[in-house]
Amino acid sequence: MAVGAGKAWLLLLLLSMAGSCSIASQGGQTVETIRQQDMAPQGMTHLRDAKKGKKVKVAKVPTEPPVGTRDFYPDEFARRSWLFESFRQVSKRFNFQEYDSPVLEHEVLYTRKSGEEITGQMYNFVDKDGYNVTLRPEMTPSLARMVISREKELFFPLKWFSIPQCWRFENVQRGRKREHYQWNMDIVGVKNVAAEAELIAATVSLFQSLGLGSGDVGIKVNSRKILNSALKIMDVPDENFSSICIILDKIDKIGRDRVVEDLESAHSLQHDCSLNIVKIASCTSLESLEETIRDLKRETHAAVPELRAAIDELRQLFSLLDSHGVKDYVSFDASVVRGLAYYTGRGGRIVWEGFDLSGEFRAICGGGRYDNLMKLYGAQHEIPCVGFGFGDCVIMEVLAKRNLLPKTMKTCDVVVAAYNQVFELRWNESCDVGAQQEMLGHACSITSQLRQIFDYADRSGAYHMIFVAPDEIARGKVRIKALRGSFRGFKSLGGETYEISEDGKQIDVPIGSIRHFIEELYSSPS
Amino acid sequence: MAVGAGKAWLLLLLLSMAGSCSIASQGGQTVETIRQQDMAPQGMTHLRDAKKGKKVKVAKVPTEPPVGTRDFYPDEFARRSWLFESFRQVSKRFNFQEYDSPVLEHEVLYTRKSGEEITGQMYNFVDKDGYNVTLRPEMTPSLARMVISREKELFFPLKWFSIPQCWRFENVQRGRKREHYQWNMDIVGVKNVAAEAELIAATVSLFQSLGLGSGDVGIKVNSRKILNSALKIMDVPDENFSSICIILDKIDKIGRDRVVEDLESAHSLQHDCSLNIVKIASCTSLESLEETIRDLKRETHAAVPELRAAIDELRQLFSLLDSHGVKDYVSFDASVVRGLAYYTGRGGRIVWEGFDLSGEFRAICGGGRYDNLMKLYGAQHEIPCVGFGFGDCVIMEVLAKRNLLPKTMKTCDVVVAAYNQVFELRWNESCDVGAQQEMLGHACSITSQLRQIFDYADRSGAYHMIFVAPDEIARGKVRIKALRGSFRGFKSLGGETYEISEDGKQIDVPIGSIRHFIEELYSSPS
Repeated sequence: MAVGAGKAWLLLLLLSMAGSCSIASQGGQTVETIRQQDMAPQGMTHLRDAKKGKKVKVAKVPTEPPVGTRDFYPDEFARRSWLFESFRQVSKRFNFQEYDSPVLEHEVLYTRKSGEEITGQMYNFVDKDGYNVTLRPEMTPSLARMVISREKELFFPLKWFSIPQCWRFENVQRGRKREHYQWNMDIVGVKNVAAEAELIAATVSLFQSLGLGSGDVGIKVNSRKILNSALKIMDVPDENFSSICIILDKIDKIGRDRVVEDLESAHSLQHDCSLNIVKIASCTSLESLEETIRDLKRETHAAVPELRAAIDELRQLFSLLDSHGVKDYVSFDASVVRGLAYYTGRGGRIVWEGFDLSGEFRAICGGGRYDNLMKLYGAQHEIPCVGFGFGDCVIMEVLAKRNLLPKTMKTCDVVVAAYNQVFELRWNESCDVGAQQEMLGHACSITSQLRQIFDYADRSGAYHMIFVAPDEIARGKVRIKALRGSFRGFKSLGGETYEISEDGKQIDVPIGSIRHFIEELYSSPS
Repeated sequence: MAVGAGKAWLLLLLLSMAGSCSIASQGGQTVETIRQQDMAPQGMTHLRDAKKGKKVKVAKVPTEPPVGTRDFYPDEFARRSWLFESFRQVSKRFNFQEYDSPVLEHEVLYTRKSGEEITGQMYNFVDKDGYNVTLRPEMTPSLARMVISREKELFFPLKWFSIPQCWRFENVQRGRKREHYQWNMDIVGVKNVAAEAELIAATVSLFQSLGLGSGDVGIKVNSRKILNSALKIMDVPDENFSSICIILDKIDKIGRDRVVEDLESAHSLQHDCSLNIVKIASCTSLESLEETIRDLKRETHAAVPELRAAIDELRQLFSLLDSHGVKDYVSFDASVVRGLAYYTGRGGRIVWEGFDLSGEFRAICGGGRYDNLMKLYGAQHEIPCVGFGFGDCVIMEVLAKRNLLPKTMKTCDVVVAAYNQVFELRWNESCDVGAQQEMLGHACSITSQLRQIFDYADRSGAYHMIFVAPDEIARGKVRIKALRGSFRGFKSLGGETYEISEDGKQIDVPIGSIRHFIEELYSSPS
């Protein structure tokens, strides 16, 4: 039983990561796979030539990051940082605490959970001590390890979150990565559905903080027990559960009729039975589900109390989601079967998936219970756990499409442009830069390249530029240019007078007064 | 020449990482090396037994992280986060922009820079595509790669920072890790000493923000040109430079006399010559250095203009540091020879090292120029670069010793303690938890374990505890206990009256009014 749960997790893992980085094979379309050789690090052949002693110019090292991974230049980092900050604020508002563990982990955590096959999908290797290690493909096993390690010291329930980078090795396809960051929130030690409600509410809270309304994104909830009980009513053996889920998952792609056919041929089910299964999987409200089940019972004369319990649990969840004020975003959807096949074990009941209403992108996030994982890892007893993973790739695409990403952020108020390095040093020595940075809270971009400086100032969002140039310095002054607004009407409180140009755009200030001038300029209401 | 620079970097790398995690062999003492087998993941043998089919209980997976790495439980994460936030604030105040790159990198970046030997110290492996990759041992090569990749689009000078996790594979000794986080600040595109001054000023700014005064920590500055020129005066061949540095580095450990002897025997130097070298390396002010050099010149009748230039450059640096207001923390120290041997190449001039004045800990940080790295990597021309690395381990030890680490942070205001899960659900359904979390800005720790709850509330820093228990619920109420202060004198603005206990510590509130009550309680001045 535990092993079965492990295998299911393998699939979950793959799907949760697949869900995070968009564009793979969808709707039967052929996806152009970028050939590995196209992505070979640049200059490797040159390097080999160089080593053979041939007279070649120094070969370039690869300037792109490893295949399927990302660099974050400052602009990209600022966006990532903005997203992570949103993750953190929501997590803290729900009183979750952040934790972390090494990106390098014991391989056995994943093979125990998902079987040896998983190693083909991992960045695993044998370290120089002979241990089998791997870049973590997901965070949950590390969380479980940490909890087991300090089980006696920790106070339950734990409400923990993290934003780990996770790695998988698979063929690189356009738009799919080999690493992503995944926001994880987990509640450890709560058996009832209040935990699920809290996690779903947190996800919705994130959507809201990012500006995504219930018309943009949603969360579909399902329960393993529904399909499980329905199969029992129809006398379909339990071991077919997972493969039936995999067939049902194709409804959107191949249509209901083909799915009915596939169920018949794959599991030798009668046509009526297959039809009923598809009917249940197509329910998108608890009401239609109850009606479908009533019909089914009338046909089969079966009574399954589990089914009632499952529906009651879902109703309880929706009532809690209502009290969290997030009901608009959440709906029952029996077609969410992927999670069902993977979140198994005794604790596997409710699962959910976040999605974009346009249907254009892959799943945004997914969550469910894994009550049996700790025991599988050797803990004395079962510890109830529920959590979700939320990747950084799909959400960014969703936000980009809706124009909800922040614009490039302002980086400084004043750009200092020196005529050359001699003048740059002159500026540094005479104007007390340290005190300026600390006291005024704005920074100087010291540069000796005038060529691109206006472009740079523009991109930095600066208000003023200070020119440290020969003519002015000869008169003991620097020239300040207003990039936005003008100096007209600027009155020094100390009564100093400065030379202002006719258009009001430039002002010459003695270099010794520059600090005082900037202070006055930035403290004045205009 | 480029290759020489590469080898030097290997040493720098090892030292910069070594510097970051304290307690290794010091002062000739034997350090107890933890044997690898002591750190073997727990339960591995049990697992093997289980696989043989013996009836054993499920073996525990390893619950500790891989050897030499760290988990960050919430308390530890909070401290790390506090330190990183300090790094970020200082970096931003100096107008540096954050960037990042994958922890997995091309192995060639490090072998090109430091020679093939470096691979023995790395977490390197061949990925499933056949590429040689490694967990990055340092950040500079990734920075260089990123700059070369977008050289034409980027506007120089770049002022970039990052806080990457860096990995090295070496024998685990007590107190030394195989990973650390390293704050990096780099200025790319500035040839003159203003860049060095800005980076040193930023480091001091960090010290100040952490509460470390100039009596606690300092920065020692040296210039490669000093020893270089001195050796030239004494006709010592240039190729001995690095190994002389390595011998000089031992002055503190083995004393001046032994170093003089070692120099004589290793390089067949005359006694006077060795003595002069040690004399120069012992200078801790520019004044004493100039005096020593005057004596030396008198002996040798040599004139070396480079030496004058080196001293002038240092004077310029100190003058800039003065204008940054950080001079108190910085001193010249010719004994900082480690960096000298590693920051070489044409650009290798000024180097510095941050240290704890007590002498108890290893180096806190180290910096210098690496103008030739980009060209070594295949860039068309040299790009001036200067930067430093600042690990997260030593600084935390320094802060811990001075009691400057933050106390555990408050995590919530109100802890909700439910009698059991039924009551927990009851609470969730009836009190509009979502609205509470969002509107009041405080969070609830929902728990059904009463046993340790007071301890938990204490550790969370909570002010109030809400008991959701049978007797009160039967009367439609919950009981609120004041953990600090009392309810005496609490007046409801809406005029509601509540039952307050005699000691003023407890109050019973109708469950329907709880949200309103908490709002009033937390908005009242007391």
